[in-house]
Amino acid sequence: MQNFTFYSPTFFTFGKDAENQAGSLVKRFGGTRVLIHYGGGSAVRSGLIGRVQASLHAEGIPYVTLGGVQPNPRSGLVYEGIDLCRKEKVDFILAVGGGSAIDSSKAIAAGTIYDGDFWDFYSGKHIEKALPVGTVLTIAAAGSEGSPDSVITKEEGMFKRGASGDAIRPKFSILNPALTQTLPPYQTAAGITDIMAHLYERYLTNTKEVEVTDRLIEALLLTMIHEGPRVIADPDNYEARANIMWAGMMAHNNACGVGRSQDWNSHNIEHELSALYDCAHGAGLAVTLPAVFTYVMNHDVMRFAQVAVRVWGCQMDFAHPEVTAREGIEKLRAFFTSIGMPKNFAELGAKEEDIPTLVKALCRGDGRQGTIYGFVPLNEDDCTKIYQLMINP
Amino acid sequence: MQNFTFYSPTFFTFGKDAENQAGSLVKRFGGTRVLIHYGGGSAVRSGLIGRVQASLHAEGIPYVTLGGVQPNPRSGLVYEGIDLCRKEKVDFILAVGGGSAIDSSKAIAAGTIYDGDFWDFYSGKHIEKALPVGTVLTIAAAGSEGSPDSVITKEEGMFKRGASGDAIRPKFSILNPALTQTLPPYQTAAGITDIMAHLYERYLTNTKEVEVTDRLIEALLLTMIHEGPRVIADPDNYEARANIMWAGMMAHNNACGVGRSQDWNSHNIEHELSALYDCAHGAGLAVTLPAVFTYVMNHDVMRFAQVAVRVWGCQMDFAHPEVTAREGIEKLRAFFTSIGMPKNFAELGAKEEDIPTLVKALCRGDGRQGTIYGFVPLNEDDCTKIYQLMINP
Repeated sequence: MQNFTFYSPTFFTFGKDAENQAGSLVKRFGGTRVLIHYGGGSAVRSGLIGRVQASLHAEGIPYVTLGGVQPNPRSGLVYEGIDLCRKEKVDFILAVGGGSAIDSSKAIAAGTIYDGDFWDFYSGKHIEKALPVGTVLTIAAAGSEGSPDSVITKEEGMFKRGASGDAIRPKFSILNPALTQTLPPYQTAAGITDIMAHLYERYLTNTKEVEVTDRLIEALLLTMIHEGPRVIADPDNYEARANIMWAGMMAHNNACGVGRSQDWNSHNIEHELSALYDCAHGAGLAVTLPAVFTYVMNHDVMRFAQVAVRVWGCQMDFAHPEVTAREGIEKLRAFFTSIGMPKNFAELGAKEEDIPTLVKALCRGDGRQGTIYGFVPLNEDDCTKIYQLMINP
Repeated sequence: MQNFTFYSPTFFTFGKDAENQAGSLVKRFGGTRVLIHYGGGSAVRSGLIGRVQASLHAEGIPYVTLGGVQPNPRSGLVYEGIDLCRKEKVDFILAVGGGSAIDSSKAIAAGTIYDGDFWDFYSGKHIEKALPVGTVLTIAAAGSEGSPDSVITKEEGMFKRGASGDAIRPKFSILNPALTQTLPPYQTAAGITDIMAHLYERYLTNTKEVEVTDRLIEALLLTMIHEGPRVIADPDNYEARANIMWAGMMAHNNACGVGRSQDWNSHNIEHELSALYDCAHGAGLAVTLPAVFTYVMNHDVMRFAQVAVRVWGCQMDFAHPEVTAREGIEKLRAFFTSIGMPKNFAELGAKEEDIPTLVKALCRGDGRQGTIYGFVPLNEDDCTKIYQLMINP
């Protein structure tokens, strides 16, 4: 195991009607003037934004609002939010939504009190200071409610890049599983896929002797395999939603990723897909993960055999571990298909002729030098072959 | 799943030589005058206390020291610590040791700034305020390094009781697995047992539909079953020590216990044993857990069958689930014996004729009304039978 630090100071309140605590939690964590930042009209129409506003009002906390966050959140709205926060002297950002609203809020929080261009943080600069952020989560997926990470798409060039820093870990996160019950099945499934991807990215490690984190990751994958189909079959199943929601947080606050190298190449490879085609990140991952795993499997067959046996219930083929490893990858692919996720380029709206564009953005975009690093280093040739594996898997 | 809150703001630094960060971490968390609180002479002889002192000295932070914490830490030393902290105007408590040093430090931290008797907190009063506490952990066992809990033995009457409150969660905890390599095998095994008990206490729930926390608990139990024998066979195995140490923290910071009722009757039943005989808490638990589980098994046979199959690798007897459930309990007992833990009253130094004394202290001591509550409510008759099951299991 590698040396590490772990710091997850977010206060979580979980359960029915938890959003009504928004005002008292903003107050507890020192907010006196709030930006409520959210996505589309559904949060308004459902009455959620109204309930959050009422709870701020009850505490006598003034607020301004900024809606319009899109999936794959854009730099343009971040600049707008930064201007608004400076003008209105906002000292607390309250994100209401999924990973997109939270990531956009984190970017605004860091950018508002930074003299330069906020994009510096998405080009490698570590975030040291930010306004405090709180969240009211409406989609179990990104794990941003408990993470120090944010991903934003730069409209100029359509690069999707990440930034990080403990300063943007939410001070509090409100998790009410009932808020996720109204999600369309496709978005629910995309969230399930994203959570499983966060687990696989941590599972693919080159660090030896990491039984505790291996087992924790496997536990969360097993949870998703059990609860995912239940919630797709019965969207109103509060209990299944609740198990998925806590698993989504635990999958990404890094309690199960400490002390080990991680991959994240699949995320990078997918980010170019959702940047170019504006597909759901989770949908892109459903196509990307099996392709990447098929390509890199031989780097550590026993690791893929282990997850196949422990998580997917495969029988170990001791004479041919690669058969078991491959079976685990096929079970993952079949699982994604079973919950309604796409399985190839065409279903994703991606095109074979765009592969050179995708590879260039991935391996050369925004300062990269031709290779992406993770479980296995992947150069432009590798990435081309991986995208090709997605055409007709 | 029940509604819950979860807050684990402790900063963890994990790995070789991590204790040298003690001074900078005290500074980061605002300490200017420190009490170093520790146990026996081994921490001094090994040079650990010296390294901690040097790191405080390097930051220019003055300190006083108070050693002598015993296993099953006593109220007398807590009173002494409180007097010392008030006299020396200490504003930060640094525990160096295992659960005993940490729990004693937490009691001192709460008591120093409380007008009444600190024992009020161990008689049911919630801890709202305390001096900040940091820890340098030397035994993987109690989980106190990441928990809001403390257990102290009141010398007058020898009652062992717990207190709780987010205010006594450590601000930081330093986890260096190498520090645990010099532990005698018996203490290592007692620590392993304590960690597994923290997991079982959470596993025994009456809350339905808690797959995510069930799976996380099982993951940590599987880790202990894998790593426990490795570290007993090879005490210098840093990697096994590291996996156990992180599992010990995760077992008790409640990330795997949220949203579900928990048991804790086994802990209460054991506390009377270690209070009366001053045996190691973990050793007492090794004898207690199988007895309690045998007694309460029929309350939810399928829960015991589940852990038998998922954790102990038993084959499910679908016609007779109670056979599988019992097999899992026997495997747990055999595991404890295999790592050198006692299996009955005699090996623990306990005596059959003391059972009425134990039951009276357990069910009537310090304000209790004849029944202890958990997975199953247990009255004096139940507790008598459970202690009897430990005589010749």
